[in-house]
Amino acid sequence: VHLFDALATTKTLSEIFSDQSVLRTMLEFEVALAKVEARLKIIPGSAATAIASAADPKAFDACLLSQEASRSGTIVVPFSKALAEIVGKKHPDAAGFVHWGPTSQDVSDTTLVLLLKRAMRVIVADLNRLESALRTLSEEHRNSVMLGRTLMQPATPITFGLKAAGWFGALHRCRIRLEYACEEALLLQFGGAAGTLAPFGDLGSEVSQGLAKELGLPFPDAPWHTHRDRLATLLCACGVLVGSLGKIARDISLMSQSEIAEVSEPVTEGRGSSSTMPHKRNPVGCAIALAAATRVPALVSSYLSAMVQEHERGVGGSPAEWPIAASIVQATGAAASSIAEVSEGLVVDPVQMRENLRSTKGMVFAEKAAVLLGEKIGKSRAHKLLEIATAKALEQKQSLADALREIPEATEHLDETALTQLDVTEDYLGSAEWFRKRLLQVPTDKSEHTKD
Amino acid sequence: VHLFDALATTKTLSEIFSDQSVLRTMLEFEVALAKVEARLKIIPGSAATAIASAADPKAFDACLLSQEASRSGTIVVPFSKALAEIVGKKHPDAAGFVHWGPTSQDVSDTTLVLLLKRAMRVIVADLNRLESALRTLSEEHRNSVMLGRTLMQPATPITFGLKAAGWFGALHRCRIRLEYACEEALLLQFGGAAGTLAPFGDLGSEVSQGLAKELGLPFPDAPWHTHRDRLATLLCACGVLVGSLGKIARDISLMSQSEIAEVSEPVTEGRGSSSTMPHKRNPVGCAIALAAATRVPALVSSYLSAMVQEHERGVGGSPAEWPIAASIVQATGAAASSIAEVSEGLVVDPVQMRENLRSTKGMVFAEKAAVLLGEKIGKSRAHKLLEIATAKALEQKQSLADALREIPEATEHLDETALTQLDVTEDYLGSAEWFRKRLLQVPTDKSEHTKD
Amino acid sequence: VHLFDALATTKTLSEIFSDQSVLRTMLEFEVALAKVEARLKIIPGSAATAIASAADPKAFDACLLSQEASRSGTIVVPFSKALAEIVGKKHPDAAGFVHWGPTSQDVSDTTLVLLLKRAMRVIVADLNRLESALRTLSEEHRNSVMLGRTLMQPATPITFGLKAAGWFGALHRCRIRLEYACEEALLLQFGGAAGTLAPFGDLGSEVSQGLAKELGLPFPDAPWHTHRDRLATLLCACGVLVGSLGKIARDISLMSQSEIAEVSEPVTEGRGSSSTMPHKRNPVGCAIALAAATRVPALVSSYLSAMVQEHERGVGGSPAEWPIAASIVQATGAAASSIAEVSEGLVVDPVQMRENLRSTKGMVFAEKAAVLLGEKIGKSRAHKLLEIATAKALEQKQSLADALREIPEATEHLDETALTQLDVTEDYLGSAEWFRKRLLQVPTDKSEHTKD
Amino acid sequence: VHLFDALATTKTLSEIFSDQSVLRTMLEFEVALAKVEARLKIIPGSAATAIASAADPKAFDACLLSQEASRSGTIVVPFSKALAEIVGKKHPDAAGFVHWGPTSQDVSDTTLVLLLKRAMRVIVADLNRLESALRTLSEEHRNSVMLGRTLMQPATPITFGLKAAGWFGALHRCRIRLEYACEEALLLQFGGAAGTLAPFGDLGSEVSQGLAKELGLPFPDAPWHTHRDRLATLLCACGVLVGSLGKIARDISLMSQSEIAEVSEPVTEGRGSSSTMPHKRNPVGCAIALAAATRVPALVSSYLSAMVQEHERGVGGSPAEWPIAASIVQATGAAASSIAEVSEGLVVDPVQMRENLRSTKGMVFAEKAAVLLGEKIGKSRAHKLLEIATAKALEQKQSLADALREIPEATEHLDETALTQLDVTEDYLGSAEWFRKRLLQVPTDKSEHTKD
Repeated sequence: VHLFDALATTKTLSEIFSDQSVLRTMLEFEVALAKVEARLKIIPGSAATAIASAADPKAFDACLLSQEASRSGTIVVPFSKALAEIVGKKHPDAAGFVHWGPTSQDVSDTTLVLLLKRAMRVIVADLNRLESALRTLSEEHRNSVMLGRTLMQPATPITFGLKAAGWFGALHRCRIRLEYACEEALLLQFGGAAGTLAPFGDLGSEVSQGLAKELGLPFPDAPWHTHRDRLATLLCACGVLVGSLGKIARDISLMSQSEIAEVSEPVTEGRGSSSTMPHKRNPVGCAIALAAATRVPALVSSYLSAMVQEHERGVGGSPAEWPIAASIVQATGAAASSIAEVSEGLVVDPVQMRENLRSTKGMVFAEKAAVLLGEKIGKSRAHKLLEIATAKALEQKQSLADALREIPEATEHLDETALTQLDVTEDYLGSAEWFRKRLLQVPTDKSEHTKD
Repeated sequence: VHLFDALATTKTLSEIFSDQSVLRTMLEFEVALAKVEARLKIIPGSAATAIASAADPKAFDACLLSQEASRSGTIVVPFSKALAEIVGKKHPDAAGFVHWGPTSQDVSDTTLVLLLKRAMRVIVADLNRLESALRTLSEEHRNSVMLGRTLMQPATPITFGLKAAGWFGALHRCRIRLEYACEEALLLQFGGAAGTLAPFGDLGSEVSQGLAKELGLPFPDAPWHTHRDRLATLLCACGVLVGSLGKIARDISLMSQSEIAEVSEPVTEGRGSSSTMPHKRNPVGCAIALAAATRVPALVSSYLSAMVQEHERGVGGSPAEWPIAASIVQATGAAASSIAEVSEGLVVDPVQMRENLRSTKGMVFAEKAAVLLGEKIGKSRAHKLLEIATAKALEQKQSLADALREIPEATEHLDETALTQLDVTEDYLGSAEWFRKRLLQVPTDKSEHTKD
Repeated sequence: VHLFDALATTKTLSEIFSDQSVLRTMLEFEVALAKVEARLKIIPGSAATAIASAADPKAFDACLLSQEASRSGTIVVPFSKALAEIVGKKHPDAAGFVHWGPTSQDVSDTTLVLLLKRAMRVIVADLNRLESALRTLSEEHRNSVMLGRTLMQPATPITFGLKAAGWFGALHRCRIRLEYACEEALLLQFGGAAGTLAPFGDLGSEVSQGLAKELGLPFPDAPWHTHRDRLATLLCACGVLVGSLGKIARDISLMSQSEIAEVSEPVTEGRGSSSTMPHKRNPVGCAIALAAATRVPALVSSYLSAMVQEHERGVGGSPAEWPIAASIVQATGAAASSIAEVSEGLVVDPVQMRENLRSTKGMVFAEKAAVLLGEKIGKSRAHKLLEIATAKALEQKQSLADALREIPEATEHLDETALTQLDVTEDYLGSAEWFRKRLLQVPTDKSEHTKD
Repeated sequence: VHLFDALATTKTLSEIFSDQSVLRTMLEFEVALAKVEARLKIIPGSAATAIASAADPKAFDACLLSQEASRSGTIVVPFSKALAEIVGKKHPDAAGFVHWGPTSQDVSDTTLVLLLKRAMRVIVADLNRLESALRTLSEEHRNSVMLGRTLMQPATPITFGLKAAGWFGALHRCRIRLEYACEEALLLQFGGAAGTLAPFGDLGSEVSQGLAKELGLPFPDAPWHTHRDRLATLLCACGVLVGSLGKIARDISLMSQSEIAEVSEPVTEGRGSSSTMPHKRNPVGCAIALAAATRVPALVSSYLSAMVQEHERGVGGSPAEWPIAASIVQATGAAASSIAEVSEGLVVDPVQMRENLRSTKGMVFAEKAAVLLGEKIGKSRAHKLLEIATAKALEQKQSLADALREIPEATEHLDETALTQLDVTEDYLGSAEWFRKRLLQVPTDKSEHTKD
């Protein structure tokens, strides 16, 4: 984690994309390749052994490699050269067999794939926690009535259980899509200079399938150096997920406003504190998720733009990808982890939810009254009458029922029982509970989705 | 089609998103809803009949509705009011039953879904044409050797068949993803004011399922007013598709350069002409696809940004969606249709392909020579020696073989046969044909994917 | 205005970008060019007259032109052909002098520039109204105290006058930048096929300067077909403006929440109404501006992406520009006009502002208390003590002063007067008024900025 | 520089945004603030001294601070706490005066501003080098004729001098805009909790102006915590600059194709080499700039999206800014430095330029022929005739002159002299040189722009 990215990643994810991790993974590729090539007698067994024994990420100067990368347009050229030098110190004969056959992008893409695989496991674990927390919130609050709000204004009532179930449903779909996208996208890259494995003659298929097996990656139909649709789909799935996380964060930050006070982020030592205001409880978990939702869509767009890559290896698209992918995945993970933590510890105040409903003085039951009246005087007349009644109620700070009581056309069709019961929330929840249950009704056994 | 969007859509797609089409589809919703409500005795049968008979898009002033929309934040408020007025002219009693129960977004979202369904059918048809054309190109040119090119510089050779198969593979995957995304996303929207169908009391489930059936749309688990992940995924699939189309367009426009002249867009009367230069054959099909690839990624990003919608109906995200979605889909369709047309009529010049290879004077077989030498003197020494040889060849405008002939260390290990055969392309294609076949090996029977 | 774009433009702006307006402007170019060429004896005077008399936008079939555009990659090829045909009907000899010399992009770019010029005038007028409204709000509410809010939680108090002045300052800067960007960007485009005006021989400079004068546009240093930095800067200025408008809209929509109720959008007949809920007052002006703020940033990004245009005329970047530019400008204008209307009629409730402050029970004066105590016991000890006091106050639903009264370490250093006066807002406004005045202190005489 | 960002920054810029640099700059702020506060007797002089002496970036654990940042939503809370602890170890009394008065964002924004100031100086220096190199190229090649190319197809001829002047003009404008944007945006941020400097009572103006002076930053009209238009404008200027750099890179990479071979990137040891193909000279400078042009537009868009910040301190927009700004600036700098290096060492081959022109067999003079003929037979007839002639020439692999020689209608109006001179490029350059000179005619004395 670096100071400039402190809120844009998590410790775990930043380690996955750290220099040491990148070096370790590139070495993993070279070692596996040498092993397979030795097995197929393409290079001597002793060379493979020498390469394996030299594969220590600490032996590389990441900073120097980074600088040299700008001369060749890829980190892999200086990296493979440095590896050959290290190998050559002890085994001069073996140096020539380092990085035998692959193109630079074989190494960089497979490295990216392996890192994404690790990162996705972390993110999916957080999503599982999150789904579980949202399911629990939904079940616990199936009867906690609250204001529905549309365009940030009071609408007809819902339950917090339904709201949480809506969050759950979206998150669940996003996780499933992410897992499918991982299965499709996280494949070996191995094609050599122009994607034909020409240096291997007839052995191309054996080397490449052997390498895939060695690295534990599926083997694709063909190299995909300039066909980025699978990775793009995976990063889009991150983008959609972050959008859904951002929606939850927006809802929670709105409900956390002191004037509304329906929920608050978990209260723990130091959380949400300010450098100058001692009373502060800032919704920092939401802030991190909303920051991700601000950044990730555009990052996804830059990955899509980068797809237009020339011929067998692009000029500008390809070198743009690493920072884009790393930023998307880390921001997605930071958002998932933040909202998981927020949801697990969310403090919910159902009393205040009902109080906020109540304080509209029945105004949100205008539709209900319009429905009741509509059956008698037609919908449009009823709608008009209720517009008058609500305007009157607002102006005179009355309840809607009281306003209606003073309008003869209303009392003619609505008796006192109807008016008294007008603001009984439980009578106007419609299919809320039916929808809530349907949203939660997804297979809880994850095994059917994750095949890993 | 409007002048400002002339290259950003097609005639068919622009008609789908035209005012008349939008009005017709919104009316379809209102008529179907009234029909279902009448069946369930929620409104009188005569009202449903009156609404159905009034449902003529020509009766509406689209321009006026558009202006009034800015007062209510949605087209649906003035639309439903106008419909009620039209109905009321002939059937005053029926007017009150127009738009009974839904919220505005129920109408606008379901309308969007129905339009997307029509548009996607058009786009998928073009993609099927395109896949077929690419498959044919790949089969016909399985033996057409050409330069592989990386970073826009000559690399080892490939076949045009392999290149076309790579295009095919990406396009095929994109179409499958698009079809899945349509199946997931194109669902009824129906929830009423805050998504609980409260005005229908116990009848919510029956009304909504009946409406879905009437409109021929799948019924979702619950209303999804502020959960846009499914539509977002569909639009992301468009974005990935456009990226893949853009890649093909970039390749074709590069190969069409007069100095390269390996392919050209179909030559038909007036196509690619200029207003001032009579000799011009501009790659306009590629231009349209590349324009889409320039615009769509960012449009996708704005849809993802719009996902952060407040509570039960968002303030800014929701009204942003219609223009975004319409732009993405039309640009995607324009790109698909352009590249389909280009691919079906692509003029390929395999002689020129081989000539461009030849004119590198064997330079692109430097890797091949390095492999041959590497077996004798080690890879790094061989690589170094070839760097010297290629530099020499470049400088003295020799062939690579000739340059090597003048380097003793080379001739020591490469005999004249090897040098003579150095630039036999067919000997250095590796697994090109194996990969090509694997890429084309997808189920050709579309029935398994499309369930429509 | 079209239904799909109803909230994404205004009537005035949609007319500027309408087919008729585009045709009229393209004709304006061709007529002016012919006039200048006739004056310089490049074409016969009779031809210029014939072209001028044929220049009726109604004579063109915009829909047909749009379709034909996809064959040549630009609307200008079929347009100039159609114009020649129309001219030729009455004046066969003149037809050949239609569109003499320019390249298609000369017409399309100059047309875009002329349309942008008209659109910008409309937008700047709305911005002037808006600045004036915000200045008035700021002056009127210089003493209306309210909660400052950070991370959507109560912070130390401010005045509404300061908040409105902050909005004003940003808007003012944005307008100035927009006007400068217009001056820099709105230039004649005229270079012919490859930007050298070759067909005019030595007369290039005279023709082009004459044409600029005729069209009332500044003459640039040179044609700028693939150098889009000036237009990009103008569209960026729109993007920044929309961001600032979105910030105001977000603030107003938050303050409009019924639980907060500090402001509301102007209440006029039908404004903010719902199709189903009679009580609704939706903040639709904010919704339109926030929708723009959701869409425009990505549109700006696609314009920046489109800047990478090949050689003397790009393949994909150039045809992408028209829809991007038109969308940005119309959305910007819709946002400016909405927020101008909202600001001019904003209903402000200073009593409720003070009430929301009061209802925090002095909590927001924790910093003030910490400052007072800090002078005695050090800042960190004071901060800690106030964290305890605020937690206690929250838990026991006390005022902060009461909580402090029960903490001996506090009462030791804060006497009863200090505690009683703790929540006197006016004592804790710091430099609010100084800053407010500085923000409003800009030249009100617009003449110095606008040179038009 | 980190491996994942190796091509996305430069060594110098990555150091400016490194943890040590960030810490040093935050400390600079706190030390300056304490100094000013001591001078104004707000805190004891001894405290200021103690803070100054503790201000060692090495004393902080950046990694730990980063992790703690996620609990408070900003790095500044743990940073100021850590600083207080360090100060307190030696001077317990002084600890309480650390970070006296500011809000966290005062520190983070001013730090960002100071880092941007350093970064911009580096970038502007590279731009100055670049402008100078482009000016030289333009002057040297004022007579190097070459193909103009539109839609990547041969158009009428230009000079390389004109092309380079066009690049120069765009770059020059971009640098001027960047410098203006820096002047406008790089201001002190200092407002305290809600932007009123309340803790300072009447001393707010003195403290803040003193602090600005101390840090060498201009003093703004007021704090600008949630008004990001100035920084947004600066980052937009980076976006426009990167677009212009990308355009140059695209042109150079196209001209570097082996079949075109008009220019190549500077050839130095190891530059542009491949891990497997010894003959490679990859245009890596262009690749780095094009990668930036792929990423930066979307990053700019995310900054614009982040502008919609709530009230006095935003929830999600603000924490999104650091990584966005740092990525934009570093990518911009990498692109500027790459293209500066490429331009300074660009290898230009004017012979090949003329050869590529020649190899079109006069086809690109079709417009010239049409102009000549048009004077006799009318433009449209002439255009049609040339379409026939060019088609014939293409098909029969003739020169355009020969094709015309076989068309009676042509020879009737064009005599042999005209046909022989048809492909004299120098006769058909129009105003190329006039435009070239105008483009270079900018004040070379930079002092008038840079006031630093």
